[in-house]
Amino acid sequence: MLGSLPSFDRLVAELSKLPGVGGKTAARLAFHLLRAPQADTDALADALREMKQKVAFCSHCFHITETDPCAICNDPSRDGRLCIVQEPQDLLAIERSHAFHGRYHVLHGALSPLDGIGPEELKIAPLLERLRQEQVEEILLATNFTVEGEATALYLARLLKPLGMKITRLAHGIPMGSDLEYIDTATVQQAVDSRRDF
Amino acid sequence: MLGSLPSFDRLVAELSKLPGVGGKTAARLAFHLLRAPQADTDALADALREMKQKVAFCSHCFHITETDPCAICNDPSRDGRLCIVQEPQDLLAIERSHAFHGRYHVLHGALSPLDGIGPEELKIAPLLERLRQEQVEEILLATNFTVEGEATALYLARLLKPLGMKITRLAHGIPMGSDLEYIDTATVQQAVDSRRDF
Repeated sequence: MLGSLPSFDRLVAELSKLPGVGGKTAARLAFHLLRAPQADTDALADALREMKQKVAFCSHCFHITETDPCAICNDPSRDGRLCIVQEPQDLLAIERSHAFHGRYHVLHGALSPLDGIGPEELKIAPLLERLRQEQVEEILLATNFTVEGEATALYLARLLKPLGMKITRLAHGIPMGSDLEYIDTATVQQAVDSRRDF
Repeated sequence: MLGSLPSFDRLVAELSKLPGVGGKTAARLAFHLLRAPQADTDALADALREMKQKVAFCSHCFHITETDPCAICNDPSRDGRLCIVQEPQDLLAIERSHAFHGRYHVLHGALSPLDGIGPEELKIAPLLERLRQEQVEEILLATNFTVEGEATALYLARLLKPLGMKITRLAHGIPMGSDLEYIDTATVQQAVDSRRDF
């Protein structure tokens, strides 16, 4: 961009690689960092290096962690349920809800044959290994409600049914605080089909 | 956010300080960086450190530069005009237009009494010092067309008029490729007032 400023251009190029950051945003961020106090930019660079050094995936549930096994796997107060999610972010969303107090297994993706993602690309083999060794009362399938997430849930349900455990899936329905008028037909349909006594 | 992951939380906190990056975006960026190859995150941290080390402001025109004076100040092919802009980004926008081949002076802001920004906060004293020493044929005021930018242009025009140089301002008018229907009234008014022979 600037010809005579290779180090500035390089930072803009590196920032442009971040998701959702285009050339203009990268330039804006770089100008901000140029003006920011040295202590702030050092803190950012250090935080990045330290995170890369310390954070890895739990060898047991594949959540992100600084210790192995992770704090959740190590927590003796967790009950015998196992929640299966696509990504660590999904696990965090369920933890924030405080509605589940079992353990987790992170698949790191969902089945997507068009993208070349089959069962071998996901953490399904370690899941089966876990289920051979651990006492699990219930498996809650919490993959996303997208085509890939639903396909993954269906695949896992078929795979795990023979093991004789209770298998559940997150409920479909109308989100809290929403207006029926603006909810898509398929969701309304599901909500009517799954209506409950009141 | 994650309790047991201080280094991840720290990176999210540092990323949240960037302009336009909220908590959710910061977490998304951090997850991306977690999965990115070590070489990529090292390149980003290095680029940030190197930029902070090498890039500074030109002591002459206050544009960003790795050499002092900057490449534009040092360029003997530049003509005797001087363009005054608010920020280095504005200078770059004019350079990209290839319509101006003089030198620049970057004010690093615009007058804004409500924010406590008076003439002393801008690079106006060094500008007057420059004008005492340099031969300048024309001063092109290219501050933004906002209230603060216009006020700054007016202030500078009054300050510089007594020095006897030709003082110009970027033209107001209809932007290229635009539809009159959607242009605000004040701009149409200016475009009619400044109409030219055709």
